[in-house]
Amino acid sequence: MGMTMTQKILADHAGLESVKAGDLIKVKLDLVLGNDITAPVAIKEFKNIGVSKVFDKKKIAIVPDHFTPNKDIKSAEQVKFIREFSREMGIENFFEIGQMGIEHALIPEKGLVVAGDVVIGADSHTCTYGALGAFSTGIGSTDMAAGMATGEAWFKVPDAIKFVFIGKPSKWVSGKDIILHIIGMIGVDGALYQSMEFTGDGVKHLSIDDRFTIANMAIEAGGKNGIFEADEKTIDYMKEHSSKEYRIFKADEDAEYRRVIQIDLSTLKPVVAFPHLPDNIRTIDEVGDVAIDQVVIGSCTNGRIEDMRIAAEVLKEKKVHERVRLIVFPATQKIYLQALREGLLEIFVEAGGAVSTPTCGPCLGGHMGILAKGERALSTTNRNFVGRMGHPESEVYLSSPAVAAASAITGRISSPEEVV
Amino acid sequence: MGMTMTQKILADHAGLESVKAGDLIKVKLDLVLGNDITAPVAIKEFKNIGVSKVFDKKKIAIVPDHFTPNKDIKSAEQVKFIREFSREMGIENFFEIGQMGIEHALIPEKGLVVAGDVVIGADSHTCTYGALGAFSTGIGSTDMAAGMATGEAWFKVPDAIKFVFIGKPSKWVSGKDIILHIIGMIGVDGALYQSMEFTGDGVKHLSIDDRFTIANMAIEAGGKNGIFEADEKTIDYMKEHSSKEYRIFKADEDAEYRRVIQIDLSTLKPVVAFPHLPDNIRTIDEVGDVAIDQVVIGSCTNGRIEDMRIAAEVLKEKKVHERVRLIVFPATQKIYLQALREGLLEIFVEAGGAVSTPTCGPCLGGHMGILAKGERALSTTNRNFVGRMGHPESEVYLSSPAVAAASAITGRISSPEEVV
Repeated sequence: MGMTMTQKILADHAGLESVKAGDLIKVKLDLVLGNDITAPVAIKEFKNIGVSKVFDKKKIAIVPDHFTPNKDIKSAEQVKFIREFSREMGIENFFEIGQMGIEHALIPEKGLVVAGDVVIGADSHTCTYGALGAFSTGIGSTDMAAGMATGEAWFKVPDAIKFVFIGKPSKWVSGKDIILHIIGMIGVDGALYQSMEFTGDGVKHLSIDDRFTIANMAIEAGGKNGIFEADEKTIDYMKEHSSKEYRIFKADEDAEYRRVIQIDLSTLKPVVAFPHLPDNIRTIDEVGDVAIDQVVIGSCTNGRIEDMRIAAEVLKEKKVHERVRLIVFPATQKIYLQALREGLLEIFVEAGGAVSTPTCGPCLGGHMGILAKGERALSTTNRNFVGRMGHPESEVYLSSPAVAAASAITGRISSPEEVV
Repeated sequence: MGMTMTQKILADHAGLESVKAGDLIKVKLDLVLGNDITAPVAIKEFKNIGVSKVFDKKKIAIVPDHFTPNKDIKSAEQVKFIREFSREMGIENFFEIGQMGIEHALIPEKGLVVAGDVVIGADSHTCTYGALGAFSTGIGSTDMAAGMATGEAWFKVPDAIKFVFIGKPSKWVSGKDIILHIIGMIGVDGALYQSMEFTGDGVKHLSIDDRFTIANMAIEAGGKNGIFEADEKTIDYMKEHSSKEYRIFKADEDAEYRRVIQIDLSTLKPVVAFPHLPDNIRTIDEVGDVAIDQVVIGSCTNGRIEDMRIAAEVLKEKKVHERVRLIVFPATQKIYLQALREGLLEIFVEAGGAVSTPTCGPCLGGHMGILAKGERALSTTNRNFVGRMGHPESEVYLSSPAVAAASAITGRISSPEEVV
């Protein structure tokens, strides 16, 4: 029986000829990742294991991004702890504020992941790197500790759903709209412990940034991972960012999938996820009149340069509605700098938006834009659970950067076509 | 007997021919100010008074800047409370994030204060506006409540210290070095309930931004207020920023001062305040080897465009030391935009600094750069009290932006001459 992309990567890293869904296997890791919330727990467990060094100083990345720049004394202590551990162990990929960014935007940008890799990260959105054709998934702090010590992890080989994209999306339909559409279709547990394998002729119309957004939110459908087969665009991206050797794994023709779902991208409209789950979607023309207090553009889902460009295109020479707070978070220092040089940050500030240094910030209710009771935010982030961005009685709506930018101008959830 | 500048403004606003130190007088207010920490308390007290409206919708300013963008649910609730009050009362000068800045940089920039005004603000650094020749002082939330209701406040007319500046400061000596020098000389209670009146031929060498910095820190010597006589530079500044009518009050020749202190600005060196008081100063050549973990450039003291320019001049084509976190906070959106257009933000980010949207942030241990136990920051802010920027066992050193920028490069407190 043939294997899926995910199964092929896992078999390779387990040193096995083949694997099938349900197999329990031990695989070699190319990267182990943690952040300022999860790494402290993992490091304490690592110390309990009693080993004196990490398996590979180059294959661990620790990124303080959730509560940085340090929100409070507690977060300062957390970052100090992981910084000291990184120095002690000689971990090369510890990224301080000023050199850093949100982990899932930073890791590919720094060239630390390429096609064919196996990556685990103590953060649920580690699935992002599937955009490059890697197997990449979120794990708990205990697995991170074991991974740092041994360079290996146990997995149950997942089943797969094959998504076949056809057609070309229209101007205002982005990766975010595609993945929200998918989550809306299959539900927040629609891909539970399965790999979401994105294929088809339509993929070629998707930029790498679109693919990062789509793979990033695989976990919001319960997916173990999301993965795209590497193509010319992927190779160009990897050549630009990494000196690592990549390997492209293609699914066998006779690979077995639990489901095959075809999506004609040309038929999609911009989509908004209503509170309090990412699968509670409506197309933009079904939204109705939803006034908002805050707009957040950024995060590991939509803080990349293309997201900044499309938001700036919508906001150019416009003004943010007087009752709306717009906060823009470029996801890395590099993206910040590029957005600055391209004149995008100037557009945001001229429009009346606040531009922050990279941080996960309000996405997880961390800091830098928390909601009061009864407030409503439209956000390009990935989760709209109850209280996700602040008070339990606040509301989060999810959308693309284009819809978010348009809504910042009108003061209610709006199509970009209304303002551009 | 003649009057000082401060006494003349107070007499005028009390409708009296003359006042003398120690008189208790009631004065009319031109502006009443509060922020996200103090305004909520004042508003609750205002509501207890039982009046239904504020004395003048144009003469109240409310600026959420300390814990904004909202740090947490509590701060979000505070801002929501003051926003709703402002809307309810029709207060015209409520400044939301994205349109705003740190109150003491924002208020003059918005033209809300000019020479001859009397301003009270529920924030100790309200003394900043003395730079323009206004009487301006920090008060408690109760006084803010009464001020909002009646447009008046009671004061005991202060004694004065006259500072006579002569000479021209050298390249790396800024307003910050001058005021730290003064505080070092007279002590943190050296001007207790006195006005600090800055005069002399040397004043003409000080930019308005230098004067803001000097007046801002009058409170750090215990001063009731700090004040400069308005000159050509002041008039230019006011004409550029305000449509309000200004009045220049000059001290009488026979005004009485508690002390007269002459300072030859040409003899000063850059100064650093060591923990844990602003008067614990050393000149830059006496600092010794002090390694630092974080550098903060910003705040109501030193977050203005000239501060950004001098920091960028030092950081241009340099790199922040790998063990240092540099965070730059332009004090208002306007300053942010100007710094962006002048290429200054690009220099900071290229050097490896993080650039934040305006906020008081770490200055008061609020958020966005809090220190862990044992960490040491060099900061352009105004206070280095125990635990001011985080953990009680952290340390804050105060300096000018030039020294702060140089130190970010070397990793220890350094003179700009070392790196430029």
